[in-house]
Amino acid sequence: MPTDVTPVTFAGGVLRILDQRALPHDVRYIETRDPAGVAAAIRTLAVRGAPLIGIAAAYAMALGARRGDEPAATASMLVATRPTAVNLRWAVERMLSAGRDAASAEAEAARIHDEQRASDARCGEHGASLIPDGATVLTHCNTGALATGGGGTALAAITTAHAQGKRVEVLVDETRPLLQGARLTAWELARAGIPHRVIADGAAAGIIARGGAAAILVGADRIAANGDVANKVGTYGLALAARAHGVPMYVVAPVSTIDAATASGGGIDIEQRDEDEVLAFAGSRVAADRSRALNPAFDVTPAALVTAIVTERGILRPPYGAAIASATREAVAR
Amino acid sequence: MPTDVTPVTFAGGVLRILDQRALPHDVRYIETRDPAGVAAAIRTLAVRGAPLIGIAAAYAMALGARRGDEPAATASMLVATRPTAVNLRWAVERMLSAGRDAASAEAEAARIHDEQRASDARCGEHGASLIPDGATVLTHCNTGALATGGGGTALAAITTAHAQGKRVEVLVDETRPLLQGARLTAWELARAGIPHRVIADGAAAGIIARGGAAAILVGADRIAANGDVANKVGTYGLALAARAHGVPMYVVAPVSTIDAATASGGGIDIEQRDEDEVLAFAGSRVAADRSRALNPAFDVTPAALVTAIVTERGILRPPYGAAIASATREAVAR
Repeated sequence: MPTDVTPVTFAGGVLRILDQRALPHDVRYIETRDPAGVAAAIRTLAVRGAPLIGIAAAYAMALGARRGDEPAATASMLVATRPTAVNLRWAVERMLSAGRDAASAEAEAARIHDEQRASDARCGEHGASLIPDGATVLTHCNTGALATGGGGTALAAITTAHAQGKRVEVLVDETRPLLQGARLTAWELARAGIPHRVIADGAAAGIIARGGAAAILVGADRIAANGDVANKVGTYGLALAARAHGVPMYVVAPVSTIDAATASGGGIDIEQRDEDEVLAFAGSRVAADRSRALNPAFDVTPAALVTAIVTERGILRPPYGAAIASATREAVAR
Repeated sequence: MPTDVTPVTFAGGVLRILDQRALPHDVRYIETRDPAGVAAAIRTLAVRGAPLIGIAAAYAMALGARRGDEPAATASMLVATRPTAVNLRWAVERMLSAGRDAASAEAEAARIHDEQRASDARCGEHGASLIPDGATVLTHCNTGALATGGGGTALAAITTAHAQGKRVEVLVDETRPLLQGARLTAWELARAGIPHRVIADGAAAGIIARGGAAAILVGADRIAANGDVANKVGTYGLALAARAHGVPMYVVAPVSTIDAATASGGGIDIEQRDEDEVLAFAGSRVAADRSRALNPAFDVTPAALVTAIVTERGILRPPYGAAIASATREAVAR
């Protein structure tokens, strides 16, 4: 386990953010006392991963409280940074319900972070129970310690299975356009000593067709009340290939990812990001000068293609409507 | 139409190859009198595209004839460069049946090139008939003038529809790992003045799900006797998404791409390429230092997912067995 991956640290009124854009080659930090600095880090993906941006936003609210900023203004600035991620909104709303004073706000942000660590551990255990010994599993984007501030979600299932002594190999979708798989997931797996191979996203379907993956494990940015899953663009194609070849498709995410107010995937706002993420690479233009791009950050996988949704409260199975209603009720009551 | 795209030119005993690795930013040529130089250009993808590598290999055989090389040795060196592309083998075998003297070999290579131009024009017309006015179509890899030495295959269908006055827009899969879509197809479309957007390969399925593409058009590297299609990795995932959403999936390829000796896709050898194509980008390492990759160059789309195979001899529809047998018989008789 890469125990020294600490993507967000709060101490002495300063939030220290590991700049994930520079990984795996450079380990570089952004330090800020300003909620706007955190918002910029979220918008530019210096800090990313649905649960982690919730935590970063909670600390940003605490920074705002220390400065005496108006909480509602800070909250709306933060929520606007990534429209699809529901944990972000969830964390900010929870901060708005905490006290306005700095001490209360800091305590609440730290509690959200602690709860994430505990939640990740339970997600990892539940998810690991679905991974057979000797399996090759396929994952997309980054859902590890870098994505949550704890042990991760889908990647925690894999690292937990490995820690339990299971032999596991991982196929890592490189995850264009920002290569979170090649840059971040492969880095975490290399540090954990887990055998893995990076693949082009387009290679996954053919590899699945040839029996190359026993299961697909992904995270989620938002889960609708009916179990439809918004996640990093490319997830839906994996789900189609998994279904075509009888391979289980597991979504691993904390209950805070569930948006009970959104009935189905059709109601999820899909963030469109900068065209240059596709047209350029590391600052160099790849495509022809006059060419444009279309860059949706997410896609929606219908619940019917999801074998199970693994949460810290247990493994949800279809039909998801009732299971999700029950899991979110418990979470609210908690 | 980008009329001045001449990816391969033979004159005065010298083969001049446009180095496609440097596009779209640099227009650079490789000039060689040596069949081994052509083999290296094919192996490193300086020259690529299934029909074009057939033509380049034919000219390489002509260069060998001029030098007095043993034709069988030159042929086996060339065939080994790209094991999946069947046009390559087809062209080399045709050259072996031509005379051993330089004049006969040069005439035969020029004839193969001329036939490709004529074939492309017919593929383009047949393919264009399948594209409705006002359609947005999605394509993968590069199947344009750069891929064939003529007008192209799948991309010729699009440029022909445009030339006929149809309004057409194109979604271009960037096509990792080597970005032939972003680098080459977008460049050809920009020069032809056809509106287009580059997308990450992983974005295609979600865009298709939202009704963003009226048809998918791709080329082929080998078509088995039953209609299974080996093409650039990522094609199979497109076919799954197209089928899930009732979008037609068209394969545009000359009859020389059909390998009547291979019964089905299971018998097609899938070329595995260098891991660094995935792990690095434009010469810079992307992934963690200890990470490895898996890099299949192609995947196989089962015939059942292919709406039609568009050839220079007409549009083949399922069931493909009989249609393919008839098309290849005519080609042999030709």
